[in-house]
Amino acid sequence: MTTIKIALLGFGTVGQGVYHTIRTHQRELASILGKKVEVAAVLIKNKERDRGIEDGILVTDNFEDILAINGLDVIVEAIVGREPAFSYLQKAIYRGCHVITANKEMFAAHGTELKKLAGIHGVTIGFEATVAGGVPVIQTVLQLLNVNRIKKIEGILNGTSNYILSEMRTAGKSFEEALIAAQEKGYAEADPTNDVEGYDAFYKLMILSEIAFGGKPDWDDVPREGISSITGEQIKQAEKLGLRFKLIASIQRAGGKITGSVRPTLVSESHPLFNIEGVENSVSIEADIVGRITLQGPGAGMYPTASAVIEDLIHSLLNRKVKHPSIPHLVKAVPESAGKNEKQNWVMMGLGNSTLKSIPNWSIAENESLRFLEADETTVSRLKEQNNKASFFEVLGEPVLEPNVFEKV
Amino acid sequence: MTTIKIALLGFGTVGQGVYHTIRTHQRELASILGKKVEVAAVLIKNKERDRGIEDGILVTDNFEDILAINGLDVIVEAIVGREPAFSYLQKAIYRGCHVITANKEMFAAHGTELKKLAGIHGVTIGFEATVAGGVPVIQTVLQLLNVNRIKKIEGILNGTSNYILSEMRTAGKSFEEALIAAQEKGYAEADPTNDVEGYDAFYKLMILSEIAFGGKPDWDDVPREGISSITGEQIKQAEKLGLRFKLIASIQRAGGKITGSVRPTLVSESHPLFNIEGVENSVSIEADIVGRITLQGPGAGMYPTASAVIEDLIHSLLNRKVKHPSIPHLVKAVPESAGKNEKQNWVMMGLGNSTLKSIPNWSIAENESLRFLEADETTVSRLKEQNNKASFFEVLGEPVLEPNVFEKV
Repeated sequence: MTTIKIALLGFGTVGQGVYHTIRTHQRELASILGKKVEVAAVLIKNKERDRGIEDGILVTDNFEDILAINGLDVIVEAIVGREPAFSYLQKAIYRGCHVITANKEMFAAHGTELKKLAGIHGVTIGFEATVAGGVPVIQTVLQLLNVNRIKKIEGILNGTSNYILSEMRTAGKSFEEALIAAQEKGYAEADPTNDVEGYDAFYKLMILSEIAFGGKPDWDDVPREGISSITGEQIKQAEKLGLRFKLIASIQRAGGKITGSVRPTLVSESHPLFNIEGVENSVSIEADIVGRITLQGPGAGMYPTASAVIEDLIHSLLNRKVKHPSIPHLVKAVPESAGKNEKQNWVMMGLGNSTLKSIPNWSIAENESLRFLEADETTVSRLKEQNNKASFFEVLGEPVLEPNVFEKV
Repeated sequence: MTTIKIALLGFGTVGQGVYHTIRTHQRELASILGKKVEVAAVLIKNKERDRGIEDGILVTDNFEDILAINGLDVIVEAIVGREPAFSYLQKAIYRGCHVITANKEMFAAHGTELKKLAGIHGVTIGFEATVAGGVPVIQTVLQLLNVNRIKKIEGILNGTSNYILSEMRTAGKSFEEALIAAQEKGYAEADPTNDVEGYDAFYKLMILSEIAFGGKPDWDDVPREGISSITGEQIKQAEKLGLRFKLIASIQRAGGKITGSVRPTLVSESHPLFNIEGVENSVSIEADIVGRITLQGPGAGMYPTASAVIEDLIHSLLNRKVKHPSIPHLVKAVPESAGKNEKQNWVMMGLGNSTLKSIPNWSIAENESLRFLEADETTVSRLKEQNNKASFFEVLGEPVLEPNVFEKV
């Protein structure tokens, strides 16, 4: 039986998960591929630390050692940041290796280029692990929605933020207290900016945009807002309305234009993302034939992410054909009516008394002034400028409120 | 450009959906397949009724006319019942056509045989539409969970029952009233037995069992219970406990044995099936590497089901390799510990006063006598015999109850 040789770049949580899974699932891999799968080398930063890597496997801090391995088939990259990951993968592709990455920031920035390069060199690039951990959303879009035209994707793509929002709601914690809890559980980094300010969800959204629509919006045109300014008081107000705060990453194509956002959003019970709690991730896909389908599962963690990498390995090695996302998904024009000018429901929180007097509003209790709006993004932007102390949150799903409470603006 | 010729057997909701979708998505199909897709013929029962089928398409009530079509590539079967569907598909396969079916009862009974026959004759058989409508659960198991070993699948597979349970809970209706509402909306047949007594969910579960585990349990060994005996009172009691009734179809493999059931079950908020309401379907898959992933979407309807058929068409024609489910998924033994002898949480409802005196119980309110048990299936069967007026419901997810309320039996 011939052998598939793999090198791992990075031996953190994901790298270790892949290493162990390859060892525990030798039988399955051999049965599916008809070949033995072997980890030939591991690239690490500090060679001195003992990591329990089996003798006979090359452990090196020099990427050139990896490239020099005779008959290397696949390079799995699980390091953090754009560089040196991008340069490594470029070299790997030139060298004729299939590549699999779990690096969302690098892939959001350089995925288009890497995919093109891989095409030229006749190798594949797997990136399931870059979005929503073990949830197979990338392959669902690439392999299972071929004829369906995707219209919109809404997702909870950052487990850390979702855990914090869950803790704030269920345990009545402040943002700061919930963040500490997340850090203690290992769900948040010492510097949590990337997660709680929406950067991580943004990178994932850009990767989804490209596979669903064959392109990405200008990054600067995508509003990106995190959850650090959400207060316990706002969460309580939402709860009284039957709504829950979620950090929603959303991308849609309408009128030939791709628009997206990452921001705290109010979700009602009728929406499939309402009940996603803790570190779970979920992605809801609206497509023209099937309607809406939603996937949910572990968004991070050693084995869920390893699962994504290992399943990508099978797709790469069996060389399954997948649709080219730009054909036909950008061929057919979508009606101009949709998009930025479409009206959504909004809740406006934190109105001052003076504002209260001048605009109509609907209060759910004394001392809690809220305003319910049905407005498009442009109008909301204008209102935000006029009411710079108020917060505006879009509402997803049928709100559990009296009908017509949303005032058309 | 060459042409793919398709015949549709049946022109009900699904057949019509496929017919229209092929027409509206010509461009997408041509772009993916490099070939034009054409409906060459439609088999119907009553030739006299006008169905708005375009001139030039053969409309016939004789299956032999279909088989006689020159260069026929694919037969899509969307009729009801085991026969004549099974015989038609056998003949289609002998004739060298790819087949795609939406017929769950036929496929649950004859799927193994048809798959074998298709293998011998070098054609493919698509059956995504037989389970959970537009939710791509079949292809997720076959194509996206190759290395993962599936341990358990839990699903809400019957939209009619789920709609009725939702109506009973949210609108306070009785089973009978909710059934009438479902019939008025077209969600339930005049004779609803197949849906409300769990047969439909059972057929789908058997199809899932075979793709996940490479085999099915003996049909007689699978407890199948519907929702017709659930009362409004029981739903209210559950609601007070933070639990919701769902008709859960469940299948698992443990100790080399496959066990399953279809029955009303209590689901808590921590479980992904808790918030599935109305006619939605959902399938939760537990696998050894990834953990639990859950899919949700429309379980029936013209276009969701057509979506499943059309996407199968692509898989058939691109001849994508999929794992053979019996290899490696039955190769590796699963620990003997799990399965029928594993203890679950149960709520016992409808205890008489005499029973109440003799066994420990925990009442949530006066006149509402409940008992909370932690017991295996065998013990519950014994208790059922001893308390034949009581109802026993398994609890999925972490129950929102005081810890240790479940009494070990």
